[in-house]
Amino acid sequence: MSKIYAGVDLGGTTAKLGLFKKDGTLITKWEIPTRKEEGGKYVCPDIAESIKKKTEETGLALSDLAGAGIGVPGPIRPDGYVEVIVNIGIRDWNPVKELSGLLGGIPVKGENDANIAALGEVWQGGGKGYEDVVAVTLGTGIGGGVILGGRIVPGSKGMGGEIGHMVMDWDWPEPEACNCGNRGCLEQIASATGVARIARRFMRESDRASSLRDISGVTAKDVFDAAKAGDTLAQEVADYCMMYLGRALAYVSQVVDPQVFLIGGGVSKAGQYLLDLLQKHYDPLIVLTKEKAKLKLATLGNDAGIYGAAKMIIDER
Amino acid sequence: MSKIYAGVDLGGTTAKLGLFKKDGTLITKWEIPTRKEEGGKYVCPDIAESIKKKTEETGLALSDLAGAGIGVPGPIRPDGYVEVIVNIGIRDWNPVKELSGLLGGIPVKGENDANIAALGEVWQGGGKGYEDVVAVTLGTGIGGGVILGGRIVPGSKGMGGEIGHMVMDWDWPEPEACNCGNRGCLEQIASATGVARIARRFMRESDRASSLRDISGVTAKDVFDAAKAGDTLAQEVADYCMMYLGRALAYVSQVVDPQVFLIGGGVSKAGQYLLDLLQKHYDPLIVLTKEKAKLKLATLGNDAGIYGAAKMIIDER
Repeated sequence: MSKIYAGVDLGGTTAKLGLFKKDGTLITKWEIPTRKEEGGKYVCPDIAESIKKKTEETGLALSDLAGAGIGVPGPIRPDGYVEVIVNIGIRDWNPVKELSGLLGGIPVKGENDANIAALGEVWQGGGKGYEDVVAVTLGTGIGGGVILGGRIVPGSKGMGGEIGHMVMDWDWPEPEACNCGNRGCLEQIASATGVARIARRFMRESDRASSLRDISGVTAKDVFDAAKAGDTLAQEVADYCMMYLGRALAYVSQVVDPQVFLIGGGVSKAGQYLLDLLQKHYDPLIVLTKEKAKLKLATLGNDAGIYGAAKMIIDER
Repeated sequence: MSKIYAGVDLGGTTAKLGLFKKDGTLITKWEIPTRKEEGGKYVCPDIAESIKKKTEETGLALSDLAGAGIGVPGPIRPDGYVEVIVNIGIRDWNPVKELSGLLGGIPVKGENDANIAALGEVWQGGGKGYEDVVAVTLGTGIGGGVILGGRIVPGSKGMGGEIGHMVMDWDWPEPEACNCGNRGCLEQIASATGVARIARRFMRESDRASSLRDISGVTAKDVFDAAKAGDTLAQEVADYCMMYLGRALAYVSQVVDPQVFLIGGGVSKAGQYLLDLLQKHYDPLIVLTKEKAKLKLATLGNDAGIYGAAKMIIDER
């Protein structure tokens, strides 16, 4: 049997896990709950136990496991040290060392979850065949991962690809600040919650008719669905949000000039309609080259993290 | 004799040249005019001839020359091909292949001049000891170079580090567009010509007294000198320009998270006064880490390019 690699994508509710061959074949994937009790002391033992059990169930030997990668929802230092992961409640933790110990000393590597998702997409998803890629995840917040030459750019303090916190509206007109403390961040405008926020603002600021007014608790999906169905207010909301995202992507191009941007996360389910709006705002800002970066959809969805985590440790071997 | 390396920084008026040891010791440096006649056909022969002559004059053997790097004032592809260099008038040119042929087939590598200047500063200048550095040159225009892991990030279309063309003022109030065709680019605000432009605007828009009003053809140097001497209008101009530069550097941090920004070019002669203004605007925008990137002055001046060109070919060997 050839060697296998485990990819772990740790989240606040569940950990996603996968076993992979070196060529990118997914052998099996599964999920376990993330137990937050007692400062998260069960997190690594649960993961290790589950990997052992699944390896055996799949008819593989634990001795075939050549390494594991783990993505965590927060900043992690190159040596694996984590100061704090807010949504699990873990502090002063080194999941890399702990997991390696629990798995018989195999090599383990850790990374921020947005970065491993980006790497996963480049390996086996929408970015396959490219090596300079920036992935943007439009979820509750906005995450980003920068891949250059096929490798994650973590940044000197783990802040590489934190494009959700680029301040894009310097005259932010709403009282609510971003979670990060700044005002007018991209995340406040173009995330799922951001698109909904802008829709509420547009409805508040005019009396114009819109199908969105009949919906209580408008979501980003509602906005894009209504826009596609011809609702002009919804179209303006979508256009406004994608204008700011397009500006941010132009800034990213002016720093690292990727071949491709991959757009993922819940908001990206709006598909080609969203990409077309984005391209309309992005292209005119890129004037120094005729070859604009391609805008594409991410394709691995929630599996991107386990792919990237496995790829990360394969690249180390 | 140990091996030596040539660094060439080709400009529209002169080419700067240097011979280096592998450890960064500069053996000698000199300049030759850039002959633009007949579509630039003399440029490479002049450079090669000059390197041969200087090598002999210095008591070295041409056989000791192990490689050469050349920086060019425009985009250059990885294989050395140059579509056009506007300020020399050269088209369809491959200085890398031509120079290698003229120097007996030694390895030659080419790069954009802003990128090699950044690499030179990281090797032997203000960035020494760091490996993740973004260098910003505030001259007539604004150039930038991104160095990650000690290596240049050229970008997939050679646009890496083109931060001068980030649109920073989306409501650009002046009729004049940027050279690139867009409006409100960082270069229009924070380059030497940009600072002078903003000074003219501030004087036009108020009747307030200022020592700048006594100067015909106000320069960026005039603005910073007057600001340091207590002229409040000049202080406001300097603050305004550095606010936009600080915002741009924050964007750069949110993409690649460097350890250090190096500020060079003529405007940077304003020194610590400029750095203090910049830091004031940059720091509050970086909220995800307590360790902000350091802002430092570039130290090699016009020699940065020859250092970086030599380092580039040394790294290839």
